[in-house]
Amino acid sequence: MPSISEKGMLMPASPIRKLVPYAEEAKRKGRKVYHLNIGQPDVPTPSSALDALRNINLKVIEYSHSAGNESYRKKLSGYYRSIGINIDHNELLVTTGGSEAILFAMMTCINPGEEIITPEPLYANYNGFAVTAGVKIVPVTSYIENDFALPPIEEIERKITAKTRAIIICNPNNPTGYLYSADELDRIRDIVKKHDLYLFSDEAYREFCYDGASHISAMKLEGIEKNVVLLDSVSKRYSECGVRIGALVTKNKDVIQTALKFAQSRLSPPGLGQIAAEASIDTPPEYFMEVNREYTARRNYMVEALNRMPGVYCPKPKGAFYTVVKLPVDDADKFAQWMLEEFEYKNQTVMVAPASGFYSTPGLGKNEVRIAYVLNINDLKNAMEALAEALKAYPGRI
Amino acid sequence: MPSISEKGMLMPASPIRKLVPYAEEAKRKGRKVYHLNIGQPDVPTPSSALDALRNINLKVIEYSHSAGNESYRKKLSGYYRSIGINIDHNELLVTTGGSEAILFAMMTCINPGEEIITPEPLYANYNGFAVTAGVKIVPVTSYIENDFALPPIEEIERKITAKTRAIIICNPNNPTGYLYSADELDRIRDIVKKHDLYLFSDEAYREFCYDGASHISAMKLEGIEKNVVLLDSVSKRYSECGVRIGALVTKNKDVIQTALKFAQSRLSPPGLGQIAAEASIDTPPEYFMEVNREYTARRNYMVEALNRMPGVYCPKPKGAFYTVVKLPVDDADKFAQWMLEEFEYKNQTVMVAPASGFYSTPGLGKNEVRIAYVLNINDLKNAMEALAEALKAYPGRI
Repeated sequence: MPSISEKGMLMPASPIRKLVPYAEEAKRKGRKVYHLNIGQPDVPTPSSALDALRNINLKVIEYSHSAGNESYRKKLSGYYRSIGINIDHNELLVTTGGSEAILFAMMTCINPGEEIITPEPLYANYNGFAVTAGVKIVPVTSYIENDFALPPIEEIERKITAKTRAIIICNPNNPTGYLYSADELDRIRDIVKKHDLYLFSDEAYREFCYDGASHISAMKLEGIEKNVVLLDSVSKRYSECGVRIGALVTKNKDVIQTALKFAQSRLSPPGLGQIAAEASIDTPPEYFMEVNREYTARRNYMVEALNRMPGVYCPKPKGAFYTVVKLPVDDADKFAQWMLEEFEYKNQTVMVAPASGFYSTPGLGKNEVRIAYVLNINDLKNAMEALAEALKAYPGRI
Repeated sequence: MPSISEKGMLMPASPIRKLVPYAEEAKRKGRKVYHLNIGQPDVPTPSSALDALRNINLKVIEYSHSAGNESYRKKLSGYYRSIGINIDHNELLVTTGGSEAILFAMMTCINPGEEIITPEPLYANYNGFAVTAGVKIVPVTSYIENDFALPPIEEIERKITAKTRAIIICNPNNPTGYLYSADELDRIRDIVKKHDLYLFSDEAYREFCYDGASHISAMKLEGIEKNVVLLDSVSKRYSECGVRIGALVTKNKDVIQTALKFAQSRLSPPGLGQIAAEASIDTPPEYFMEVNREYTARRNYMVEALNRMPGVYCPKPKGAFYTVVKLPVDDADKFAQWMLEEFEYKNQTVMVAPASGFYSTPGLGKNEVRIAYVLNINDLKNAMEALAEALKAYPGRI
């Protein structure tokens, strides 16, 4: 039997994969499991998207253009211009989810063996795409003690070598919920410019900023227009993760032309998803205001509930719908498994994502978990109650 | 400005990319252009697929399982069993088109720098995925003089080195339309077994076999069950290229488990496409009989018309809906461009795909083109008439 490739062996499994059988077993026992482990929002998809599908009047579901349907690209570039990102429809490619935008950016800009710097905790799938592209992730650790602010710029600069080709940031951040300030982004811009690096900016959570804080796109940073590659997704914006539609956006024509060749090899992005995504651009502002109100309430409730638990520390994130929380436990992986395998409170339990999977440096995040506040307040209350009881009962408490 | 990656530079552009602006220009001049260059069928998508979309009753378009919705995987494994491929729903992954199945197979089974052997002419996008995966395509030439039959097995065996990890075949073949015989497949099986290679079998055109010829899946070859990875797509089967749903199927559990890690990194295959594809499995046999009748008629018409043109040779393919044709021209790239740029007959012209892009060996296919018979008979007649006139008028005729 022929063997598996080295990259296949290196590919990380998803941080929660090991836990899935325990969650399934808990459900088989009739236990209610609150899923705080994944970023699958419960927010309804805009009706304009669903209506567009219900009114579909195609005879043949054809390939779209490899760069995406022109009608969608035009409307999407209008969306970007409406938020001050001045691009036209030839400066973006429609991708199969934000995932493919990340992969195309790495394949287009970085050679195998070269390096990409990223603050950690990081979006875990960057590791997978880096393995696929043969690229080395170089982490710069941010700390819960600073609420996961950007590490000092000297720390980042110290990691730059002759092999460094890019920096990737996720803003607002998955998994920490951290929203970068204008000052932090300016510091990133300065080193990107100084060392002529690419800056990949993953802004899938742009619409999820709280407390009146505003999101600053890397596309607006002056003097590095040809260095910035925006990686985007409609998954969270319109609560349509399943359509698998994202975008790669850049003023760098060489990057667009090269990424298009990768796009041509896979023929086209999903056609039905593009129909839904195009219709979603008409979503009225009230939808986002309502979503923002809801997430703000959830976050406020959750952060307070967590910080009331003895030994727990939760920063108050300004964006996305995640937070990385410090727990008074010996090992968050064990704790997460124990909650599913052995614990119940009123026949309920909680699934969280151990944070170790969001660090690239081995050994970090051992007593941290990522929590996604994607449940309604009532479920969130029950989940927090169960989590508080679990922390009291857990034998590995420290 | 930071530079583009080496892989980005190496990525081949699509074989017809250069011609697209000329086609657009011809249309701007008011000319009718018959597209024989792409495999976008005009056959209607089954109504069951479109109805499933029109009746969608989701509130949230959520991520599906990374391996694909369980309901779809179960139904799809039933489809495979119905054609004698004995697998269950854990022996397949739903992929984003057949494209992603090809990429996952390469990433999972072959290391960068290692080799994959394939008969040429080959599906041009294998080149792109090979660049992405860092894998070297090693072609074994098949010849139009033999109607593109499998090259002698000694020819293939001679190409095997310490770096060879896999053979990839496309059956029925895109671009040649060739359908492998039981005997040819047995010979491939023997060397796969002898050298313990992977056999990737791209069977996207399984349903398109003519003259009563039957398709033999590589999944049925005895003694190499753990070596075979079936790469599949619903694009052509149900005329729904735009849904971007394919599958990677294998009895090799290590391959499934490893490919699943690549699948997890991109989260999930398209959700709406899976709905359409799942509903398509109910398509009644009459649909396929009608499609088969139609393509047989088109093929018969086209092959005859081509072979009537002086200096032209067209094999009579038994599968898919392509044929590679030899033309009496100095350079098929130039001829294809000339037809779009300078030629018209009754204000009509034809777009074909020069075959050079389907060869991996430089210099081959110079007087061949790939023709897709995806137009109705009437359009096909006009296209053949225009092509015959073009061959008479072309200054580079030999």
